[in-house]
Amino acid sequence: MTLQPWKLKQSRYILKDRWITIRADTCETSDGRIIDPYYIQEPSDWVHVVAFDGEDRILVTRQYRHGIGEICTEIPCGVLEDGEIPVTGMQRELLEETGCAAESFHELPSFSPNPARYANKVYPFFAMGVRKIQEPAFDANEEIEFEFLPLSQILELIDSGKFQQALHIATLFAALRKRGLVSLKA
Amino acid sequence: MTLQPWKLKQSRYILKDRWITIRADTCETSDGRIIDPYYIQEPSDWVHVVAFDGEDRILVTRQYRHGIGEICTEIPCGVLEDGEIPVTGMQRELLEETGCAAESFHELPSFSPNPARYANKVYPFFAMGVRKIQEPAFDANEEIEFEFLPLSQILELIDSGKFQQALHIATLFAALRKRGLVSLKA
Repeated sequence: MTLQPWKLKQSRYILKDRWITIRADTCETSDGRIIDPYYIQEPSDWVHVVAFDGEDRILVTRQYRHGIGEICTEIPCGVLEDGEIPVTGMQRELLEETGCAAESFHELPSFSPNPARYANKVYPFFAMGVRKIQEPAFDANEEIEFEFLPLSQILELIDSGKFQQALHIATLFAALRKRGLVSLKA
Repeated sequence: MTLQPWKLKQSRYILKDRWITIRADTCETSDGRIIDPYYIQEPSDWVHVVAFDGEDRILVTRQYRHGIGEICTEIPCGVLEDGEIPVTGMQRELLEETGCAAESFHELPSFSPNPARYANKVYPFFAMGVRKIQEPAFDANEEIEFEFLPLSQILELIDSGKFQQALHIATLFAALRKRGLVSLKA
């Protein structure tokens, strides 16, 4: 068996506004089966950052997340604007959400939030020498608290289900590996 | 500032079929702003497994993922059926997708795939003593290859962008931590 991409036979948008874009595709598999509809979501690309201060503490945010109806602890993140390169969007979002800037930003290998159903990418970063330089400038409907926590405390929050954003946990793992803060025993 | 959940004023389904459920909510923030529409997706809950064989190699799958239009390397995963408990669904999906069974399954703390926009949960597992006991029984439109790889090779695939499913990377980190296969230097 050799895996083959599906052939796209037809594509139509069934929901498209400022907040959501959903496409329904008609596809054909390599052995001639028709798949219809196959829904794909097309959000803008996303950026995440593991932002370390001078003492290697990590910046976490807290905000209400309506998908699960809870106040969530996360890392700073955001949506790229049209034409914006990832590092610029990341700097902008970090400044807007937390009023923080960094001495350096380091891009990590990109992720897919869900390669089956989402067409967009996540660009994860880590940042060094992060500190608050001004007051945050929230978007409409954003209300965000933030603080720097040691890694051990963030891992406790993950283990107790209080830090549950899986995409951000993937970014944390990538940043810790890249910085040599985790070592593998295997 | 104290973070407060939004109040739900109204809720309506705008897309609901076998494959997708999208809800549009009208919400009110604690300071009286109205948010409308706020879209929430309501998929079934998902299960993922880091499946170790007797030599601590990890089972990976490869399949075409139409969201990004690529053949992706991932870990076994699936969708819970109505009323199914996570471990049962995980055993079923592992058997269906790869024909493998395990000596033991261990549930890890649950995740949210996207707490802002998704209402569902991910139940991550690791499994020990995994081996093939029968031929896979794919769902319609599933065509999956699989093999056991050492962890070092999976990390190379992540770093080179060939293993890019962020939710699965979060599950991998959780499993490695729980099994004591990574140590933190912080």
